[in-house]
Amino acid sequence: MNHVAVLGAGSWGTALAVLWQELRPTLWDHDARRAESIRRSRRSERFLPGVALPSAVSVLGDVAEAIQDADIVVLAPPSQALRQMARQLAALPDWRDDVPVVTATKGLEVDSGKRTSQVLAEELPQAPALLASLVGPSHAEEVARGVPTSVVLAGPDVQRLQPLQETLSTATFRIYTNDDVLGVELAVSMKNVIAIAAGISDGLGFGDNTKGALLTRGLAEMTRLGIAMGARPETFSGLAGLGDLVTTSISRHSRNRNLGEQIGAGISLREVTRRAEHVAEGVRTTRAALELARVHDVELPIAQQVHDILFADKNPRDAIRDLMLRAPKSEVTSSQKGAP
Amino acid sequence: MNHVAVLGAGSWGTALAVLWQELRPTLWDHDARRAESIRRSRRSERFLPGVALPSAVSVLGDVAEAIQDADIVVLAPPSQALRQMARQLAALPDWRDDVPVVTATKGLEVDSGKRTSQVLAEELPQAPALLASLVGPSHAEEVARGVPTSVVLAGPDVQRLQPLQETLSTATFRIYTNDDVLGVELAVSMKNVIAIAAGISDGLGFGDNTKGALLTRGLAEMTRLGIAMGARPETFSGLAGLGDLVTTSISRHSRNRNLGEQIGAGISLREVTRRAEHVAEGVRTTRAALELARVHDVELPIAQQVHDILFADKNPRDAIRDLMLRAPKSEVTSSQKGAP
Repeated sequence: MNHVAVLGAGSWGTALAVLWQELRPTLWDHDARRAESIRRSRRSERFLPGVALPSAVSVLGDVAEAIQDADIVVLAPPSQALRQMARQLAALPDWRDDVPVVTATKGLEVDSGKRTSQVLAEELPQAPALLASLVGPSHAEEVARGVPTSVVLAGPDVQRLQPLQETLSTATFRIYTNDDVLGVELAVSMKNVIAIAAGISDGLGFGDNTKGALLTRGLAEMTRLGIAMGARPETFSGLAGLGDLVTTSISRHSRNRNLGEQIGAGISLREVTRRAEHVAEGVRTTRAALELARVHDVELPIAQQVHDILFADKNPRDAIRDLMLRAPKSEVTSSQKGAP
Repeated sequence: MNHVAVLGAGSWGTALAVLWQELRPTLWDHDARRAESIRRSRRSERFLPGVALPSAVSVLGDVAEAIQDADIVVLAPPSQALRQMARQLAALPDWRDDVPVVTATKGLEVDSGKRTSQVLAEELPQAPALLASLVGPSHAEEVARGVPTSVVLAGPDVQRLQPLQETLSTATFRIYTNDDVLGVELAVSMKNVIAIAAGISDGLGFGDNTKGALLTRGLAEMTRLGIAMGARPETFSGLAGLGDLVTTSISRHSRNRNLGEQIGAGISLREVTRRAEHVAEGVRTTRAALELARVHDVELPIAQQVHDILFADKNPRDAIRDLMLRAPKSEVTSSQKGAP
């Protein structure tokens, strides 16, 4: 394996192409005119400002050309565009199901609550020879500038992931494998909801004490839903759970935390959405997660408060107060119930 | 219960006295001259700058006077001064073992590796009627200004903690109980070591991705030691473990993170210690934790690297690199082993 195609030239796809420059990546942008502009300027000021694209990265506007010689195809669209991208691939006359497909997309599909691997299973005509999810605490901006980063590659058979793990690892980008695909995909989606709550706390002027407590209860809430759905609790203590939750909840790069901070400061969701270049995944995931919680009969108190703030005009300060007052009084009892 | 004595007028003791002003607290400073100065100025510029002491707080330089009418005695000295404080109490002619004692001190005793409840059991002539540890994600500066905070009150019998829990809780300071005293005391000590590592990463200019991965592996390492010593793993996922780890590792208030940041920026431990007003607990805890790890035959890779940086002049960048390269390649295998 020595050539990788990255489909989707947003922040994350562009950062991955920069990271993997030694694999002579192709980077596909569905907007052919923008692909042309990036190809010429070697910059993507909209999605990855300040980073120069190495000459080894080929930016293409034609998806068939982008995957033509690929030994690995990496899908990096926004999560709500994944189904559309899969359909486009399936319709290609020369789409080959013997090429490993790695999805680098987080988030649940909003209408269906489906995870990325489920969406692909539905849309690709045949299951690819190898299908894996690459996720974890990895802000695009930091990966592009070589900050030490550890991520998870999830697939049903860890043995078969090893060649991908070796090819896609670099000195600063360490890949761990995990066979709990459900847990990994759910954790990285759900963490965006908790990150919105962490941002709301920031916007209200609260502090690190509040954030430590919110993340503790947030991880417990994510884990509870995961267990109810059949995931392994250890996955939530790992990089896709705890790791990504911490990174997203403390980072000024995080769209979800930033959205929460604006909401906490009193700006409406409508106004935040109007201003934003990118839509924060966690807004949609909040609804999808609560629907999953209903189906699996699990309580998600933080997700519920985030929902009520975003969609029912609840005052953020009241929501945090309700969360604190609602809290059970013993960690012992609560840990038996899966809380706090 | 309506009167509380807080012994130790450092940052934490002073913040607790401010928090509990409705309980008409006495605040004891072992330095009688400083007590006099704080009493007059109503300020502790050294330990809690910018915060005015409410008039309900009585600052005293005489310990017998401070505990005279107390219904609850709270010990808030630096951890290495706890044994000395306990001896002083035991020597008082009117020390009463029917008063509940709450320790609000974190950290292991450096020579013995002993936890706070162990030190008190050795030094007080009789076990107090009720002995509990109050710890968790609670920076003094934030508690003093009413930032929403959740903490743990740990004691062997959760039922008996309830009156304390009710008396010491406020609208912004929520107390959860937990009967895993060993786990709680170990978690809040060990987290300072990981916070030093997080600070070192900051000092090296690394980012949120690195911190997310470090905290994930750090919590696994703390949990591993706890399980080997007989603590409950859930305690480490709770406020005293994950919560305090997050708060300490992201905060500019944290002495341990700040020390790490200076070390990561190339300043020697000797120089950092010379400049500091307070000694960071984690420096001593690193040695105590590694000794416990040796006794219980557990590996603590992050604590070991922090040790080598602090005490053996290891280059911080090499240490982070060694940590990343050392990393096992599968989360599945590693979670079975208790890593990453």
